Amino acid sequence: MKRTAFFISDGTGITAEVLGNSLLSQFESVKFEEITLPYIDTPEKVEAVIQRINETGKQDGHRPIVFDTFVNAEYRAMIADAESYNIDIFSTFLKPLESELDTASTYTVGKSHAINQIDRYKARIDSVNFALDNDDGARTQQYKEADIILVGVSRCGKTPTCLYMALQYGIRAANYPLTEEDMGGEDLPDILKQHREKLYGLTIDPFQLAAIRNERRPNSRYSSLDQCDLETRTAERYFRQNNMQSINTTNFSIEEISTRIMADANLNRRIV
Amino acid sequence: MKRTAFFISDGTGITAEVLGNSLLSQFESVKFEEITLPYIDTPEKVEAVIQRINETGKQDGHRPIVFDTFVNAEYRAMIADAESYNIDIFSTFLKPLESELDTASTYTVGKSHAINQIDRYKARIDSVNFALDNDDGARTQQYKEADIILVGVSRCGKTPTCLYMALQYGIRAANYPLTEEDMGGEDLPDILKQHREKLYGLTIDPFQLAAIRNERRPNSRYSSLDQCDLETRTAERYFRQNNMQSINTTNFSIEEISTRIMADANLNRRIV
Repeated sequence: MKRTAFFISDGTGITAEVLGNSLLSQFESVKFEEITLPYIDTPEKVEAVIQRINETGKQDGHRPIVFDTFVNAEYRAMIADAESYNIDIFSTFLKPLESELDTASTYTVGKSHAINQIDRYKARIDSVNFALDNDDGARTQQYKEADIILVGVSRCGKTPTCLYMALQYGIRAANYPLTEEDMGGEDLPDILKQHREKLYGLTIDPFQLAAIRNERRPNSRYSSLDQCDLETRTAERYFRQNNMQSINTTNFSIEEISTRIMADANLNRRIV
Repeated sequence: MKRTAFFISDGTGITAEVLGNSLLSQFESVKFEEITLPYIDTPEKVEAVIQRINETGKQDGHRPIVFDTFVNAEYRAMIADAESYNIDIFSTFLKPLESELDTASTYTVGKSHAINQIDRYKARIDSVNFALDNDDGARTQQYKEADIILVGVSRCGKTPTCLYMALQYGIRAANYPLTEEDMGGEDLPDILKQHREKLYGLTIDPFQLAAIRNERRPNSRYSSLDQCDLETRTAERYFRQNNMQSINTTNFSIEEISTRIMADANLNRRIV
């Protein structure tokens, strides 16, 4: 059975998409085609969307599922007439919240990201620049300013995790890739041990690491299972020796890795 | 009036946080303290959270608002007993969805990000690497493989936007910073004009640009209002000359800029 789901908004559509995706993923036996339609902010655009919904329903033989977060009341009313199963996210929750808070809500497009825009923008840019500047372990003099320093072998997920934490949370995350040189010694390099309380380990299943590295440098020693196994085992030993918290990234998404690190290391987001 | 809101989950908490934040931002007159508690996945952790909710309520003089996405039924039942106003997101929507889809849902922690983990991971890494490799306009030979090329003056938001599109959507986004050299000519450089259909302009209010640049290089010509005004006017003229789509980033968040570009340029996400 194939069903089509639409995530529709007069704003970014991110709320409808995140909630809708999360709900639909609880139905494993249904195959969904998911379509996000952001910035549907004129009556003409709403009309066109309704047409598309109705046509899709005829093609599928099932009415589409619609998740919407229209803040414009006129568009909400229009979309309710589409031949679809509608989940009107704001209406569902805002009325009861209004009575709990004893206040009327200010239905305004894009409100959720519009506050303190410039400060938020600067905090994000600063933390993204910090992550980019401290991406390869070469510039360790900025570790004093880091909120956290991710340590792990090459290709275990450090860079995207640092960037995700910078963009989503404004966290200043540095990363230190353990090189072959570091692997020869008995322990982590001194420059890292000086910042022991900021270190967080990333490790990965050696088979998956070999698969990832093979895409970059096929059939090299770097990509061999032996080398990947040796490196990850050494890294994990260093983590234990230094009582570092760590995560095995193998079965986790960047979101999961980032939120776990935030929770484990007791980090507070710098942007809301 | 100050109210505390908790976003609680046995998973990442991202769904509870995104939806909760979006709803609460509709109440401008209320000051919220927002606390995200992810990975609450043992009865002991749930108990500790309930204690914290109850104590917070006493301190605030108002019961906290709780948004939760527990998939574990036992924890959902436990949290319902906290002295708080609870919005149980999954329960609200999953029951009606089950009858619409005529299927039982498979309540599993973290389902929404667990599918095709390795493929998704690789696609993200590839697009993040692409954004990093093509971040400064120096390596234009990869433009053939780009999904989009962002063009704009220094510090107008190109890099974080490229990284956001890479991480969230798996989009291969290059960026070309317009330098003083490019400003001297009559039009965009030829290397860009060859890829006309992939170009998308970013511009910014010159006052805000000057403020941002001043943080990096105070009192320089680079940061002067005159220079910022000249550069943005020239960039906007180039956009018009080439019939390029563009966005003024001044009042938009990275999420808004990215989703607008995706919509304007008709880009489809490469990862779900």
